[in-house]
Order: sequence, then C-alpha cells, then structure tokens
Amino acid sequence: MSSLRWLPITDWLPNYRKNWLPGDLTAGLTVGIMLIPQGMAYALLAGLPPIHGLYAATLPLILYAMLGTSRQLAVGPVAMDSMLTALGVGAIAVVGTSNYLMLAAILALLVGVIQLSAGLFRLGFLVDLLSRPVISGFTSAAALIIASSQLRHLLGVDLGKTTSFLETMTAAIGNVGKANGYTLALGIGGMLLILGLRKINRKIPAPLFVVGGAVLLAWGFGLNALGVKIVGDIPAGLPALQFQLPTMAQIGLLFPTALAIALVSFMETIGVGMAVQRRHGNYKVIPNQELIAVGASNIGNALVGGYPGAGGFSRTAVNDQAGANTQLAALISAGLIVLTLLFLTPLFYFLPQAVLASIIMVAVFGLVDVKEARRLWSLDRNDFWMLAATFMATLFLGIQLGIGIGVALSLAVHIYRGMRPHLAILGRLPGTGVYRNVNRFTELETIPGVLILRFDGPLFFANVGYFREQLATALRQREKPVSTIILNAEGISSMDSTATDSLRDLLEELSNKDTKLIMAGVIGPVRDTLFHSGITEKMGAEFFAFDVADAVALINQPLHLRPRPEHATQCNQ
Amino acid sequence: MSSLRWLPITDWLPNYRKNWLPGDLTAGLTVGIMLIPQGMAYALLAGLPPIHGLYAATLPLILYAMLGTSRQLAVGPVAMDSMLTALGVGAIAVVGTSNYLMLAAILALLVGVIQLSAGLFRLGFLVDLLSRPVISGFTSAAALIIASSQLRHLLGVDLGKTTSFLETMTAAIGNVGKANGYTLALGIGGMLLILGLRKINRKIPAPLFVVGGAVLLAWGFGLNALGVKIVGDIPAGLPALQFQLPTMAQIGLLFPTALAIALVSFMETIGVGMAVQRRHGNYKVIPNQELIAVGASNIGNALVGGYPGAGGFSRTAVNDQAGANTQLAALISAGLIVLTLLFLTPLFYFLPQAVLASIIMVAVFGLVDVKEARRLWSLDRNDFWMLAATFMATLFLGIQLGIGIGVALSLAVHIYRGMRPHLAILGRLPGTGVYRNVNRFTELETIPGVLILRFDGPLFFANVGYFREQLATALRQREKPVSTIILNAEGISSMDSTATDSLRDLLEELSNKDTKLIMAGVIGPVRDTLFHSGITEKMGAEFFAFDVADAVALINQPLHLRPRPEHATQCNQ
Repeated sequence: MSSLRWLPITDWLPNYRKNWLPGDLTAGLTVGIMLIPQGMAYALLAGLPPIHGLYAATLPLILYAMLGTSRQLAVGPVAMDSMLTALGVGAIAVVGTSNYLMLAAILALLVGVIQLSAGLFRLGFLVDLLSRPVISGFTSAAALIIASSQLRHLLGVDLGKTTSFLETMTAAIGNVGKANGYTLALGIGGMLLILGLRKINRKIPAPLFVVGGAVLLAWGFGLNALGVKIVGDIPAGLPALQFQLPTMAQIGLLFPTALAIALVSFMETIGVGMAVQRRHGNYKVIPNQELIAVGASNIGNALVGGYPGAGGFSRTAVNDQAGANTQLAALISAGLIVLTLLFLTPLFYFLPQAVLASIIMVAVFGLVDVKEARRLWSLDRNDFWMLAATFMATLFLGIQLGIGIGVALSLAVHIYRGMRPHLAILGRLPGTGVYRNVNRFTELETIPGVLILRFDGPLFFANVGYFREQLATALRQREKPVSTIILNAEGISSMDSTATDSLRDLLEELSNKDTKLIMAGVIGPVRDTLFHSGITEKMGAEFFAFDVADAVALINQPLHLRPRPEHATQCNQ
Repeated sequence: MSSLRWLPITDWLPNYRKNWLPGDLTAGLTVGIMLIPQGMAYALLAGLPPIHGLYAATLPLILYAMLGTSRQLAVGPVAMDSMLTALGVGAIAVVGTSNYLMLAAILALLVGVIQLSAGLFRLGFLVDLLSRPVISGFTSAAALIIASSQLRHLLGVDLGKTTSFLETMTAAIGNVGKANGYTLALGIGGMLLILGLRKINRKIPAPLFVVGGAVLLAWGFGLNALGVKIVGDIPAGLPALQFQLPTMAQIGLLFPTALAIALVSFMETIGVGMAVQRRHGNYKVIPNQELIAVGASNIGNALVGGYPGAGGFSRTAVNDQAGANTQLAALISAGLIVLTLLFLTPLFYFLPQAVLASIIMVAVFGLVDVKEARRLWSLDRNDFWMLAATFMATLFLGIQLGIGIGVALSLAVHIYRGMRPHLAILGRLPGTGVYRNVNRFTELETIPGVLILRFDGPLFFANVGYFREQLATALRQREKPVSTIILNAEGISSMDSTATDSLRDLLEELSNKDTKLIMAGVIGPVRDTLFHSGITEKMGAEFFAFDVADAVALINQPLHLRPRPEHATQCNQ
C-alpha cells in the first residue's frame, strides 16, 4: 500500500511495528491523564466552561493524528492560545453567555481556515520571520500576562474587568487583603505540590494528583460553603457536532485575533515539532503540512465547540519521554478523554477553580526565560534589545500587538543592516597575492593608483546610494589620484535593476575621469544580472577578474596576453 | 568669515563671485516667469484660489535659499503635492471655504514639522527605501490621476465629487457631450501651443505666452459670457502672515496625508537635487539638511497661507539650464513673484481656468514613463512587476496607499530574497586551487569525503533554517559519506544570535557524526561575532581557513605543520 503524501497517517499506520505499541500505549495514557486537568484549566483561562477544554481534546487530536507529520506532537488546548481567545472574544462578548461559546468556536474556525490556506499556499516559510530573541521576549511577557490573569482565581476575589497587565496587577495587589484564605491556601498548596512531585519524578502526572486531592478536600470539608469557588455541574457525554458559518461582521471583529492566534499557534506547533523530530530522525516535519494539520485540527475545534489550540510544549515533552513512537499515542489520549466525558464528569463537581489556576501558574512560569536575556546581553547587544523591546511591547501593549511589533522591529533591523552593509578597503600583504582589510591587519601595502574595495552584501535599491557615497569618500581620502578601482564582489550576493542602473551611471562618471573599474570574484547570478543589463557588453571581458590578485595583474597586462585561462567570465548563458 | 554648517547660505554668499551674477539673474527671472502660471495652476489643482500658488512662491523660496544645500533646486508648488493636498483636505473640508484654506496651511505646517524633525533626527536615509521601479510606477500613475482631475476644467463641465481615477474618468467620458466648446478649444489649443513652443526652444516660457494669449482672447471676445470659466478677481498685495496651531483633531485627520506628502515631497526634492548636483560637483547635497530646508520651507508655506510644496522637477531643470550658479537665482524668482503680487494681479482677471488645466496636463504627461516599464520588462522581470504593482495600486487604490504598497512590496521582496539566498556546491578545477559552482562550470572534480558549499548572503534568523535544510539536502545527495564540510563564507556578510545558536547546534550534530566543518574566507565582522559567541574557542583555530584551497589543505595537514602563516584567524580583538 503506497502512502498518500497529504495524509501522513498512510505513511506510518500500514508500516506499524508491534514493538511500538507499549510506548504508544504508555505515552497516550499519560498524556490523556495530563489533558484532563490541563484542558479544564486552559478552558477556564480562555473564558469557557472547563468541560469545553475536554471537548477540544477529542476530534482535534484525531484530525492532527491523521494529517500531521510529527509523530510525537501532542495538540490540544495551550496557554497562549487560551489567553488570546480570552482577549479576542472577551472584547466583543460576555464570558458565560452562549454567544461567547459560539464566538470561540467561530474563532477556531477562522484560525483553522487561515492555517489551512497558508499551508495550501505554501506560506510555512513565514514562520522564519520570527527570530529567537523575539520569540523569547514574547513568550516571557505572555507567560507573565497569563499568570497575572490567574491571580483572581488564586485569591478568590472578583477583580472586575481588567484589560492590561498593569491594570490586572494593580487590582490584584489592591485586593490581596480581601483574599479568601481557603482559596489562597488551596492554590498555593497546589502549586507547591506540583513543583514538589516534579522534583521527585517528572513522569508523575502531578496535576492529576493535585486535582484529586483538592476534590477530596473540597468535598470532605464542604469548602464551597466557605467561599471557595468550585467547578460545579458538568454536563456528561460527548460534545454535539455543530457548525455555523460566521457573518461578515463576526469575521471583521475576530480576524485580527484569528491572525495572531494562527501565527502564534503555528509557531509553537512547528517549534515543538522540530525540536522533537531532531531527537528522532526517522521522519521529517514538513512546515506546510503542519499548517494543514493544525489548521484541520482547529476546524475540528469549531465542530466540537472547542476553541483554538496548538501543539503544546509540556504535553509533547511528556509524550516523547513516555515513549510515543507514532500518533497512535495521540489517538489513545483522545480515547481516554472520550471515556472521561462519557463516565467521569461527576467526579469534578467539587474541583476548586483555584487548583486549575495553580496548574496554569506552574505551567507558564517555566516559560519566563531570564537566562536567554542574560546570555544575549553578553553575546549580542542588538538581539538583547530586540528581546527587551518585544517583552516590553507584549507586556504593556498586549499580546497581539507585541508579536507584531517584535516581527516588525527585527525586520526593520535586518533592512537597516542591509542598507548600511560592512565594507572594507583592502591592502596587499607584501610579497603575496593576499588582500585584507587595512583596518584589521597591519603591514598591508597600498598599490599606487589602485583603490581596492570590498562590499559585503547584496547591492540593491536601498544601499546603492550608500555604496556610491562610500566609494566617493574612499576616493577623496586617497592623496594620490586613483586610476583603477577594484571592487571585491565576492560578498555581493545579488543586484537589482536600481543597482545596475546606478552602476551604469557610476561607470560613465568614472570613464569621464579615465578611471577603470574591475569587478573581482563576482558570483554567477550577479554575472548573469550584469550580462542582461548590457553593462558587460559595454565593458568587455576585462570588466571581470577572477579575484583581486587577478584584477591587479589585469591592470598592467591585458587579458589576451595573460597565460592563465579566464574562468571568471565563463558563464552558462 | 567661517560658514555655519546648518546655514548653507553662509557657505556660498560670502564667497559669491561676480561672474556668477549673469547666470543667476537670467535663471531667476526665467523661473519666476514660469512660476506665475504654474503656481496658479497648481493652486487650482490643490483646491485653493490661484493666488495662493503665488503666495507659496514667496517666503518658502527664501527659506530654502538660506537652508538648502542644492544651489539649483527650485522649490515651490508642484503637481504631486497639490494633488495630495486636494485629496487630503478635500476629504474633510469644502473647496472654496476659509476652513479649506486654513486646513491647507495646517497641512503645510504638519508636513514641515515632520520633515524638519526627520532631518534633525537624521532620518534622511529612509528615502533609500524607495526603489526606482516603485518611484517610476508611482509617478506614472499619479500623473494619470492628476491629468484626469483636470478633465473637468478642460471640458468646462461640473463632474461633481469624484474620489477615484475610475470614477473621474467615467464621469468625464459620460459628460464629453456637455463640454463647452470654447473652453475645450482654449484648453486643447493651450496644450498644443505649449508643446509646439517647446519643440522650437525649451527655454521659451511657453506657459506665460499661452496665459497671455488666452487672457487677451477671453477679454477681447468676452468668453466668460459664453460659459468659459475665468479666474476672476484676485486680491492684490502680499500675503498676510498668519499662524495657527492645529487642534489635536485636525492633526489626527491630516496626519496620514501629511506623512505621505512629507515622504513624496522629500523624495522629489532629493531626487531632483541629487540629479542636478551630479552635473556640477562643486558642492554636495546632504539629505538630512535637505529635509531641514524643505521642512522649513513648508513651515513658511503655513505662514503665508500656502500649501505643501517641494523642489520641483521642471522648474529646477529650467533654472539649471538657464545658468543658475547659486540660490541667489531663487531669491530673484521670489522677488519677481512679490512684484507680481503687488502690481500685476489685475492682469489675470480674464485668465480662463481651462488654460491653467492645460499647463498642468502638459507638465504631468511628461511624467508617464512607459519606456522604463518596457526596459524593465526585458532587463529584470521582478522589478517590472514591482513597477506594475505600484502603478496599479496607485491608480486604483489611490496616491497615498499606492506609495505605501510599493515600498512594502519592495521591502517584502528584499526580505524574501534574503530568506532564500543563492547557494552553490563547489568543485575543484582539476590541477588547480580554483573552486567554482558545479552547476555553472563543467569538468569540476569532487574531493572524496568533502562537501564544499558557498552561501551567498548574511546568515540570520530568517534564513538559518533554510541554510541547514539545504546543507542536509546536499549531504543526502552525496552517495559516499562526507567527513568534512567546507563552508565558503566569503558571501556571509553578517550573523545574528539566532544564526550563531543554530550554527552551534549544527556543529554539535556534526560532531556526533564525526563530521568536521571548516569555515573558509570568513570576513572580519563575522569572525568577531563567532569569537564572541564562544564557538571559535570550542572549535579551535582549525575552524577557520583562509579560503577553500586552504581548507582542503587543512584536512590532511593540521595547522601547526603547514608552512604558510595563517592570516585568516588573526583578528583585531
């Protein structure tokens, strides 16, 4: 049976090996058990009833298992997307209403359609626009925002509607005095217990123990009567399949959020997927197919009344460590959630919301990455400031704007660097054919009448003016007149039409002054461009030299007299 | 007397030579005579009474003459800025009201402040973001939009309010039948006469002849009684100085237009200024100082009840050809306008508006550049599409959006090229130390166990993933195992922290497979980056080779046994 490229399950399922089963079974059950408290906690974070977090862990997992190229990735509700859902839907609907539920599902549909289309149009490369410093700054700030949003549950105090990190923190700090002692104790106790159990063994499903213990405590001592908020009645049974086409107005309102979630959730999915794949190497994660798979999974979320999800970091790590070999593990996890929905929902009646908050708190605190900031401070100051700017923008201007500002800033820096590339004046190491930067090496000699310049970057519209200015400055700084300019073009990776036009102007100017320009070490694609532009024709074969030493030889000895064949002008036109 | 750097007039006025005067006088008078009809025509285009175009040719010219670095640039009303003013102010005020006049002056103030601040903050480099194809596509489309806006004056028909090129053209074509014959005859006759006189001698102030002739015709035959619209009463005297601080609401409404005009008018100014300077060479145009000068000139426009202007193409060309040596010519032009305002305004009572439209028509048709589009079609298809996209966006989405889309597109293409740079697998020319691209040169030999790769561009966050993918593909395609990878890094102009992190991962992966990586021809700044990242330390001196031939020698012979000193690892830390 041959495999279908667009359906990766046809790749591994027909070739399934018996010895993969124990690993898949263990991993699938472990992740399923993790998913129960995590799914409920994240749904609460997203502003939905906890049970919808379990709905989001059914069909979406199955769809990803069939379409995804990663074999260990565990998709489902994740912290960042939950937070973004709360922000986006919370701005246009009231938490707890059926309208809110419907808009969350529509958001998942939009995210899914955006991701699916991006995959079909092969836009997976866009994820490369996110640099590590931007991702790090964004993630740290988002983690703090998410943690701050849980303070109300941890304190057991209604903080009212807050729309920014500062507002939330101010409200929380101002209301510490009104905290419900039992709620606070449960929340902090939960956090400490999770951290403690993790210290003992990372494979222990700590959140499940904490949830179990808290349910028993709340039930035994009737904590709900003492002001501790509990989850309460949960409808049993599988989610009803639903589908509703959004109106244009809803699309307009939700689109910016959908775009941010589509990007962030794909970024998390592909980042985690790539990291795990690198440890295995027996399969390949294909970005565009991942977009299709996570997009389909999010459309699945819309069908079961869930909300946007992604490939999550913590559950994928557990899945991998517990021995998952294929996506069968994910199918087993989904099966466990289905059983829970059918038979176990009454067990969660007494679950205190503070405990769900403590699960989220522990999960996101691990995402605050101070180490990376300190490392960049000493390694690359530019990238440190990029991280800091993205962090500040995300924390104070919001999650959606933060990632956009980070990407825009890193592209702006890239463009600015391209506008002002490094260049060097070269000199000859006496007695050799070696030419180096005169500012870096001592004892280099200048050849009378010859200026040798190296330009390190593509020559294009945004830097060709700078190039000509720098050349003019270099010419002015030479005391004696220059009759030949040698341009070491090894680093000129491409030229656009603005650059070739400007080069033509320059050559004319130079020829009026009887100055010759020789291009040394020009790479193939640039030779092609120069050939097409007609410049080569006008300048003749002596315009190109193999390298700087060759160009220097050219000055005194015309081409046809030199013994060595000229490879540099050969070109596969 | 030493010159003040911020006041270029102190540079040329104290050193003024007597033999410059005849040229300055001729040029100043010629441009002044041109300014009278052009200023009135452009003011009408901007939606202002014609006399305000003359106001805009007084103080602004004097301010530029003192602050500007170009000695031939003729500032004042120009077509593009007039059109943008009509669009921006026309959207929030009614033409002919005093509110419209006030908002036009406030717009000039905003444009001036933006340009002045940009100059003080040294943002002149931003003009480099405009590539030639974008400028060409934008200018051609803007010229068509401006020409279409004059059809109502040429036909002598009220076309009502139109907001797009398509709407204007549809309305004009639908109303051709209602055209006033006298108006149409005057307009078309005016255009033909200007073109005819130009053919004879470009120095003839053709528009002035046409204006004079038309005034005589309109007066002699009483054309205004036959439905030909005339300029009518013009207040005599100099403009009253005015200054009004804008409200926040006005700033909010006008800011996008002000930003577009600030960019476009600076682009025109610097482009024209640079072009003329290149012909002279006895002074230097400094972009940031030009921003300050044209900004001050626009603030001057706000003070005299003008509207945003720039250094214009046609008048600067005439100024230069007529022999202008310094900005004294501009001061003489301003003087002529002042005399006109004081004594000659009654002469323009009978001037038909259709004749002003014909002056604009002829001026802008010269800006439609089909030749450039055809040249790019055969030279650089990418740049042709860039021109076409900017042209279409400007024509159908509007002038303000068009230039933004053009810039965004050209930056996107630049970024995309940077994400997928050219790379080549190199082979050795038998019997030499010369290594070239195996896809371009035949008869190259492969060294067993050695993969030689050249990467042409900076290695940064957006392409390091691509680099690793391409390397992995190249390794897979080799039939026999590779023990050494040589990376020709001459074209790697910089590396950011994402790239060094990824390189560290790669080196670890490779060392697990007992594969060595040698970087050949690394330029100084990249060596510095690698040194700071700690990679150099870990890899030792053998990590760097002088060039590919050197790296091949390194494989069999460790560093300390080789006779030639290793210059490549020397570094000015």
